[in-house]
Parts: sequence; C-alpha cells; structure tokens
Amino acid sequence: MLGLPPALADLIHQLTRLPGIGPKAAERLALALIKWEPAEVASLGQALNDSVARVTDCPTCGCLSQDGELCDVCASEGRDASVLCVVEDALDAVAVERGGTYNGRYHILGGALSPMKGVLPEDLRVAELLERIQADGVTEVIVATNASPDGEATALYLKQELVELTAPGGAALRLTRLARGLPSGAQLDYADPATLQSALEHRTEL
Amino acid sequence: MLGLPPALADLIHQLTRLPGIGPKAAERLALALIKWEPAEVASLGQALNDSVARVTDCPTCGCLSQDGELCDVCASEGRDASVLCVVEDALDAVAVERGGTYNGRYHILGGALSPMKGVLPEDLRVAELLERIQADGVTEVIVATNASPDGEATALYLKQELVELTAPGGAALRLTRLARGLPSGAQLDYADPATLQSALEHRTEL
Repeated sequence: MLGLPPALADLIHQLTRLPGIGPKAAERLALALIKWEPAEVASLGQALNDSVARVTDCPTCGCLSQDGELCDVCASEGRDASVLCVVEDALDAVAVERGGTYNGRYHILGGALSPMKGVLPEDLRVAELLERIQADGVTEVIVATNASPDGEATALYLKQELVELTAPGGAALRLTRLARGLPSGAQLDYADPATLQSALEHRTEL
Repeated sequence: MLGLPPALADLIHQLTRLPGIGPKAAERLALALIKWEPAEVASLGQALNDSVARVTDCPTCGCLSQDGELCDVCASEGRDASVLCVVEDALDAVAVERGGTYNGRYHILGGALSPMKGVLPEDLRVAELLERIQADGVTEVIVATNASPDGEATALYLKQELVELTAPGGAALRLTRLARGLPSGAQLDYADPATLQSALEHRTEL
C-alpha cells in the first residue's frame, strides 16, 4: 500500500496533537507547509522558538507577557489600579481589552474550579488575588469567569472568599459580575431558553 | 490596550497563513504550542524541516515520495503496470490506496483544468501521461478526477486526448471512470438530487 513518506507522516502525526486538529486537517496543514518557501518555513520555526522561549506570564496579573516583564496593562500608568477584572485565562483578558472600554487591571485565575477535572481552589491564583486586593487598595472586583457551570462555581467561590473584605477607607469591597442577557445581534427565536430567562430576569428600563 | 506579546502575535500571524486556520484557531494553536515541552517543540520543528527538505514527488507518477526516490507503488514489483489510475493530487492516490483493493499504478495530474483559476492543459502532467501509456504498455486508464465541475472537465479533456490511443497488440486503450452513485452508508432522504440521479441512471442488477 502506498503510504505517505515517513518524514511527512511524522509531521502529520505531530500536528494531530494540536487542539482541534484531526488527521484530515493535519494532512492538509502538512501538505500546505511543505509547499511554503524555505525562508517562510524558517521564519515560522523562528517564531515558534521565540514564542516558547520569550512568552511568560506577567508577574503581577498573570496575563501573557514577554521576557518576564510586566504586561502592557500592569506597566501602564493610565490604568485604574483600584478596579480588578478577574478572568479564567489570559485570552479572556485579551477579549475584554478588545471591547476597548475597560480601564482597570486584570487578574488571571489560571482556570476555573472543576471537581471533574481535578481543579481545586488551591490550583487557582486566589491567594495572589487576595494579596493584590489589599496591597493595591482595590475598591471593585469584577468577576468575569465564563458563563459555564465551572465558571459559575468559580464565581460563587470567589464571592465567598471576597465578601468580607473591605476597600481602603473601610467601605465594603464592591463585587460585581458581567451582565447576562442577549448577545448583541441576537435573534430571539434562536436564543436558548437559559439566555432568554436571564435577559428577562435582568431586564432594564427602556 | 493589552496586546499579545509580540513574539506570540508573530507566531499567530504566521499560523493564519495555513489553509483553514483563521485568527481564532491560530490563537488556540499558538497558545497550545507554547505550553508544549521544549523537546516536543524541537521535535515538531525537526519534522517540519525534514519534511520540507526530504519530501519530493515520485519521478515517475508524481505521488509523494522521499529523497527523490520512486514512491512505494512505482517501486513495487507486485503492482500491475498496465493499469493507470489518473488522479488530481497525491492525496487522492493515498485515498484510493486506503480502499486496499487497487493493484495498478497511479498518475498524478497535479490539479484539474480550471479556466477560472487559470489552470490550462499545459499546467497538468498530461504529456508525461501520454509518454507512460506508450512506454509501459498500459491497457487501461482509470480517470479518477474529483466529481466536481473542474474534475469533470478534466475527465472529458483526458478522454479527448486518450481516445485514439491503442494498447499493446493493437486493441483500443480501455478508458474508464469511477462509478457515480450513493456513497456507502448513505440515507436516501439526505442524498442530493444529482447523486440520486446518477445512482438511478447507473443502477445495476440486483
């Protein structure tokens, strides 16, 4: 039987280890890659090595950063240090930034609580969060975990941990979460019942 | 605004040049890659370089091969050299091989005729095909181009070019094409009209 050349079969096999890449997709990627110019392949290899070597977590918030430095948000003078947006992953912070209106800082939990996957409170960056709240004089924590069961559980756990804390001056720390409702552009007849339920429950004045 | 670290942004940008990989998929791949062990990343880089350097086309049929050698099929003594299966791409030959019953050889056209994409007869390996038919004493050519408009046009063009040729001994060269009908496992109510039409037209005795 005609097989693929061993070098190519090895490349395809390695590509199937990437998330969302099955055997057919890996075949297509590998065949595209071997048609690239040698300089382009070298440049991809370089970018890969650079990323692995240089991308680090921001030592303060845990966002993606480079060479162990503070991330852009933590390094910026213009951002409001008294508001923290708590997200599961670094990409979630990038998504919130894309909105373009948030001016506080971030805190990356590094996941969500999940007894099924064995993620327990001590696996998340909660101790660091408590420390930052005290040290930075935080007045509001926006819990922006995913709207999934794990994300919900994590939000409830954080509420439990943070509800007793006070902001500077002795007022209670403000704890908020992202609004639930129809996503923008949504059509009612395609919305799932849970979303419609939330949208009804949290309806606002017209 | 919090951006991605430049090294990572560069990697993501390069990955989006792969077929079927959009910005979101590239982000997911890049983040997965930077979490790999350094040894795994090195091994992927090695496989990539190996493939680019070593994968070549079989000098006879155009299938994927390595280091300029004949492919497994052309190198095998056991395959019937008098039957040629003509396919568009090397992966099509791999697909036919997976069936496990074909015992002839292959000829890769290197694409299909497409005036829209600017692929003309002289861009396909048709001259090589004519040469092989004479040199190898071919008695049957199975045209296995895709069941797409371009594939159909290519099949008709090949018929025109090959219909006058003779097999060794003076008999006419046998020209065949893949059967059209229901794919195996198909449900009639999900089949498209053109497929059902073909299946009816080419019905066989029960």
